[in-house]
Amino acid sequence: MAITVVGSVAYDSIETPAGRRERCLGGAATYFSLAASYFCDVRVIAVVGEDFGPEQEAVFKSHSIDTRGIEHTAGKSFFWEGSYLENLNEARTHNTELNVFASFEPKIPEAYRDSEFLFLANIDPVLQRRVREQMPGVKLVAGDTMNYWIKDHRPALLAVLKGLDVLLINDTEARMLAGESNLVKAARTVMSFGPRFLVVKHGEYGATLFHGSGPKGKSAERTFRAPALPLEEVVDPTGAGDSFAGGFFGYLASQKQLAPGTLRRAMFYGSVMGSFACERFGTERLQEISRAEIDERFNLFRELTHLD
Amino acid sequence: MAITVVGSVAYDSIETPAGRRERCLGGAATYFSLAASYFCDVRVIAVVGEDFGPEQEAVFKSHSIDTRGIEHTAGKSFFWEGSYLENLNEARTHNTELNVFASFEPKIPEAYRDSEFLFLANIDPVLQRRVREQMPGVKLVAGDTMNYWIKDHRPALLAVLKGLDVLLINDTEARMLAGESNLVKAARTVMSFGPRFLVVKHGEYGATLFHGSGPKGKSAERTFRAPALPLEEVVDPTGAGDSFAGGFFGYLASQKQLAPGTLRRAMFYGSVMGSFACERFGTERLQEISRAEIDERFNLFRELTHLD
Repeated sequence: MAITVVGSVAYDSIETPAGRRERCLGGAATYFSLAASYFCDVRVIAVVGEDFGPEQEAVFKSHSIDTRGIEHTAGKSFFWEGSYLENLNEARTHNTELNVFASFEPKIPEAYRDSEFLFLANIDPVLQRRVREQMPGVKLVAGDTMNYWIKDHRPALLAVLKGLDVLLINDTEARMLAGESNLVKAARTVMSFGPRFLVVKHGEYGATLFHGSGPKGKSAERTFRAPALPLEEVVDPTGAGDSFAGGFFGYLASQKQLAPGTLRRAMFYGSVMGSFACERFGTERLQEISRAEIDERFNLFRELTHLD
Repeated sequence: MAITVVGSVAYDSIETPAGRRERCLGGAATYFSLAASYFCDVRVIAVVGEDFGPEQEAVFKSHSIDTRGIEHTAGKSFFWEGSYLENLNEARTHNTELNVFASFEPKIPEAYRDSEFLFLANIDPVLQRRVREQMPGVKLVAGDTMNYWIKDHRPALLAVLKGLDVLLINDTEARMLAGESNLVKAARTVMSFGPRFLVVKHGEYGATLFHGSGPKGKSAERTFRAPALPLEEVVDPTGAGDSFAGGFFGYLASQKQLAPGTLRRAMFYGSVMGSFACERFGTERLQEISRAEIDERFNLFRELTHLD
């Protein structure tokens, strides 16, 4: 099975208590693709500038990620600069340069059209919708968004949510989108906008999957909570959420059926890939995980949460 | 098996988004005792004023809690007034009147001295230590504390920690006590002060048990994470932490051995009792749970976290 993902491929300059890196390869689509590539075929739609060369291309290629949908254009790639010096859970943005992303018009290569899975990473909901409409045959669509689109582009975002099967956002975003502080009620409201499944990411506390709406007071029967790994050192949390999405959706795409147990294991694989992403700067760790390490960490998550 | 608990028995005036209650029965020892009473015998050491009458006594008696250690004295009982209007995860204190608690000198009834378990609820560490020293025969000692004692009474607190087997605190307290923002490292530091087991409570995100210190990077092998129940409505979070402690320690006291599986189940029972406490104001819900409800919720926590 193959996932087509649309989103940013970018350069990030990052400062954390562990150090600083200049212009490392980043972007939501990059993190997502690398994480998902351990589970299934991945095809990327993005736009990059002249600063994206064979070295960056090779990162994708070495994971058999299809880059025919990465458009090369004049100018510079999307650039983000941020730090986590005070709070590892929340980035402080110092600079965002859209560059070639400002006029991004996603084009879907013919070879991508038989993808059964589609991931709409965090970009302008107008673009998310345009891609969604061009892929009418997909079996499962998941997506991400952020506070900026929730606050200032609500109608466009609501149009996207109608066509989503799975939405992956964080606590603050879920509460903001629903206009409701209680997470269970917020989840119900968000799911009424379209998604059958809602994954709310809690950073270092893990993530919760909401599916369907159980009878009042029985919400846990329709809920699954995956932990995050208590890490000795979070080197760089950039891309942890996108890596979670990649592990989660990549695992789903590798499975024949969307059974409840499949979703639960997907939540664990999401946490697994999110935890790897934090261990090194940028995508460094995601570039070189072995399948044995993934399985080992999956089992660690089981030990961390299971009674027996 | 019996637990002796020393702590506050008090009156609380509480305001939450769900409403307001004046002078309901509260105090850490009250919440702890009620929660633990579903698992084992409980004996309380506390001090109350003339406002504590047969009605309040009956709450303890109806759960077979031994109140011979509750000293009645002239004056008014400890009183706390707080609200959770902006943030259900953190109380805003409007008023604290120590009253009879200001001159509390814990006295241990002869009948309590064969208790095998001791819980030192959140009070002045000088008093915690005095009680600990008068109960040399106990098998397992657990305790709680808070930011005030951590900041301004550190030497007295460190003396208590030396004699503790289990410390139960929240994230902020763990980080403050260790002077370290990474939770895994903070846990290791706190355990170096004495406790073999550290339970860090994350409010709506559950709690983590740290035990021993695994080799670097393998910390999860020595870690267990219990979720909190995603609740439709948190009526009143007052006492949720003490109720967690009561469920956790009460379950341990009901078991013959301190096996790893026992500790994991104790974490779940802690979360179970904490979730009940939040459902109604004060101790209302804790006063009337059935054993079947406890078992049902325990199973709900299993479903919430287990893959199969």
